[in-house]
Amino acid sequence: MGTRLGELVERFGGQLQGDPNLQVSGIAPLADADASHISFLSNSKFRGQAAASQAAALILSAADDAVVAPDYAGARIVTPNPYAYFARAAQFFAAQREVAPAPGVDASASIGAGAVIAASAHIGAHVTIGEGAVIGEGAVIDAGCFVGREAVIGAATHLFANVTFHARCQIGARGIIHSGAVIGTDGFGFANEGGVYIKIPQTGRVIIGDDVDIGANTTIDRGALADTVIEDGVKLDNQIQIGHNCRIGAHTAMAGCVGVAGSAVIGKYCTFGGAAMVLGHLSIADRVHVSSGSMVSRSILEAGQYTGFYPLAKNADWEKSAAIVRNLSTLRDKIRALEKTIKTLTNQEQT
Amino acid sequence: MGTRLGELVERFGGQLQGDPNLQVSGIAPLADADASHISFLSNSKFRGQAAASQAAALILSAADDAVVAPDYAGARIVTPNPYAYFARAAQFFAAQREVAPAPGVDASASIGAGAVIAASAHIGAHVTIGEGAVIGEGAVIDAGCFVGREAVIGAATHLFANVTFHARCQIGARGIIHSGAVIGTDGFGFANEGGVYIKIPQTGRVIIGDDVDIGANTTIDRGALADTVIEDGVKLDNQIQIGHNCRIGAHTAMAGCVGVAGSAVIGKYCTFGGAAMVLGHLSIADRVHVSSGSMVSRSILEAGQYTGFYPLAKNADWEKSAAIVRNLSTLRDKIRALEKTIKTLTNQEQT
Amino acid sequence: MGTRLGELVERFGGQLQGDPNLQVSGIAPLADADASHISFLSNSKFRGQAAASQAAALILSAADDAVVAPDYAGARIVTPNPYAYFARAAQFFAAQREVAPAPGVDASASIGAGAVIAASAHIGAHVTIGEGAVIGEGAVIDAGCFVGREAVIGAATHLFANVTFHARCQIGARGIIHSGAVIGTDGFGFANEGGVYIKIPQTGRVIIGDDVDIGANTTIDRGALADTVIEDGVKLDNQIQIGHNCRIGAHTAMAGCVGVAGSAVIGKYCTFGGAAMVLGHLSIADRVHVSSGSMVSRSILEAGQYTGFYPLAKNADWEKSAAIVRNLSTLRDKIRALEKTIKTLTNQEQT
Repeated sequence: MGTRLGELVERFGGQLQGDPNLQVSGIAPLADADASHISFLSNSKFRGQAAASQAAALILSAADDAVVAPDYAGARIVTPNPYAYFARAAQFFAAQREVAPAPGVDASASIGAGAVIAASAHIGAHVTIGEGAVIGEGAVIDAGCFVGREAVIGAATHLFANVTFHARCQIGARGIIHSGAVIGTDGFGFANEGGVYIKIPQTGRVIIGDDVDIGANTTIDRGALADTVIEDGVKLDNQIQIGHNCRIGAHTAMAGCVGVAGSAVIGKYCTFGGAAMVLGHLSIADRVHVSSGSMVSRSILEAGQYTGFYPLAKNADWEKSAAIVRNLSTLRDKIRALEKTIKTLTNQEQT
Repeated sequence: MGTRLGELVERFGGQLQGDPNLQVSGIAPLADADASHISFLSNSKFRGQAAASQAAALILSAADDAVVAPDYAGARIVTPNPYAYFARAAQFFAAQREVAPAPGVDASASIGAGAVIAASAHIGAHVTIGEGAVIGEGAVIDAGCFVGREAVIGAATHLFANVTFHARCQIGARGIIHSGAVIGTDGFGFANEGGVYIKIPQTGRVIIGDDVDIGANTTIDRGALADTVIEDGVKLDNQIQIGHNCRIGAHTAMAGCVGVAGSAVIGKYCTFGGAAMVLGHLSIADRVHVSSGSMVSRSILEAGQYTGFYPLAKNADWEKSAAIVRNLSTLRDKIRALEKTIKTLTNQEQT
Repeated sequence: MGTRLGELVERFGGQLQGDPNLQVSGIAPLADADASHISFLSNSKFRGQAAASQAAALILSAADDAVVAPDYAGARIVTPNPYAYFARAAQFFAAQREVAPAPGVDASASIGAGAVIAASAHIGAHVTIGEGAVIGEGAVIDAGCFVGREAVIGAATHLFANVTFHARCQIGARGIIHSGAVIGTDGFGFANEGGVYIKIPQTGRVIIGDDVDIGANTTIDRGALADTVIEDGVKLDNQIQIGHNCRIGAHTAMAGCVGVAGSAVIGKYCTFGGAAMVLGHLSIADRVHVSSGSMVSRSILEAGQYTGFYPLAKNADWEKSAAIVRNLSTLRDKIRALEKTIKTLTNQEQT
């Protein structure tokens, strides 16, 4: 019932040290693995744990293998990036256990006129597909989803239950949109006249590339006139808000609760820690990394790690430091006064 | 197929300089507009761009018109607030292109006993309307929405797909509730007995005025005993949380990810930047403006702009400043000691 | 039509001073109560208001009763924790007015093969129940909910409209999940290879204890390999994000907009103010209280109150203090220089 190590190496590469006919039925962490599992070592500080693992086989780097091999009796797959190898192997084992949704349209779904649904796509219960929408080959639209008029869902893209994907928006191939996410809602655009807000129609779209993951209850606004763009390979966690007309560069990742205000342009290969916030109309360069809980209030033109949150303290200590922060200019003025006095004193000494 | 400039001026006012029979088919930004468009100048720093625009006509202020007119060949509509004029014209053009949902109740909708649905209202697929609910004239309840028992949806109000609007809550006319929003969920109220929480039933309602917009995945709690109140013209962006028994004053606007804890009373014409937070039981005066990412921990009794977030820095610089912030009282004490020493020194000098 | 005070005391305890046959029809705050209500005094500073209340009866502590009784003509129920008593009495009155959902499965619901639904459970309109799911006695699954394959919903647990509860996850008895919440979505786990993210399958579950409340639009990720665990009595408000493999200890409460990154382990009886954030892989001891808007970036091993947010100020004052915070090390260096100079001066004086 298992998978031969030889098959793993044929699929995912790596150099096998051991019997290619040895079978494993799944992947497990070093401490939990038994003789039916393959495990992996992605951090050298766990070499001791790896050597003592009960796993039938290990995925590890050449450097770690040199140290671990003498003490470890099982087979080894040596590869430059064991964590990426683990991810691929885990996908492989998960796919074996997964119950693939059957192609076809559930009888309770509502399909608009002119919608084009690939024969291999799955449309779940109580789904609504708008007029003229296009659902690609192998796409999965789970129960309760809404796909608006003329929207396009790419091949092998998966909308989990209760996703809302509005009219004319598009997502490419192999994407994942988790439950409760809302794609293509109106951006927050108003003109103000005498204190009263007048809505500016939001007529742009959201255009999402290939291999994009969007977390549960994340919201992405459609553009006001132009489009909001999420490039290939972007990974968004849960509860994220992306404002209208933003562009998120390829392979950028954002952790949960991040907010990006309208018209921000974010580079490629960036990372944003949880609850980081980006003001509107800013530019963020490629390979910028923003720490959790940090507010980005100006454009960042240089790659690097940026941080800005108040350090946590016992409440009583915070109250002291916060009171001083409130009056920092007083502190600075006192120092200036001291400097002046000392200069006078020093001059007197010298005369 | 276009609209005469004369018709725009008849509808929205302004003084037309040019041919009233000239037709435009839509509105576009200065840089994108061509001879089929009208465009607008709402910021004087783009006067040069306006003069060079390919748009058939411009909406602009008298002050800008005086500068732009000599260099611009097209027609002009002169008005005191070009941005508000743009918003209205854009609504007009968008309505022309929009496919209005047909009146009537989708066959898949579930309608509770005694619900009153106006003949001109649209009820989409898989909608659930509770017993005794009232849906006003021209209201649109898109697919997957839930409207609870005895709830009231005002005339021409639009609930986008997958909105949840709980029992007995009310919204007035011309409102918009975006997808995934939840109105009237239980407030977070518990009594604590020996460490264990006992739920306090939340029996109040959410009462929402006219012309209120509520963003995607925003949540508004029902009151504990009294009601939570959202006054006329309030605009809430996505992912906002409003606690039980809050009152949000008329024409106040909040950007995405704002949180307002229970029983806060917020004035009229306020603005809250993204991710601003307001503690419970506070009062905020009219015309208070809170910057993004700021925590409001005390009542604000005076109009004005308020801010409080840690400034972003390169991570290494932040680590230095954060370490000092943690020990600011040490710094203050050192200054006090210096002041004392210098006083002694100065006295010695003078004797 | 009311309830005898004697019945309340039989149900919830306390010492009645007054006529057990006196009837009340509901509970109301001191200021709003009339002769048909019972009211409560949970904060001694309102003793004057209690004495003057029009309520037919009061719930109060012995200490307050000693002061209030001489001036108050109504009946009194004396109990050590009047607020908890109020909560229980309010639940009792609310249950009398509530329309209990009828047992049975709505005709429009989709029920997967092998699902086991208790006869006393209610399954609303447009609900989808996955294959092999188990719905306990007296559970209520409101309209539009999705319950995944082999999920388990405990007895008397209530899923409000439009909840998503994913495959194989479990919740115990007497829980409440509010609308729009998503339980068991994939955690945010990727391996990175040359800048490109490779998804790590999330094969763990979410396991939720008894008496847990989960707020509207809150998201809880399933574990990567092991499970995410929410222990008994936990109360989560709206818009909260809990990452994969977290453990939240029993009777811990979190206010709205809190975020907890993956693999954080949080103790029992903790409280988190609104929008507090916890980084991943941290440990938080029992009885830790984190203030609103605070970022927890290190483990907290000692009970107590912790805070960390930038104090709010008028914007002009904030700009001054923020500019100094950015350059705090300059300020510190100036103080060091002053100390050195003064030391030299002092030495000169002494020689």
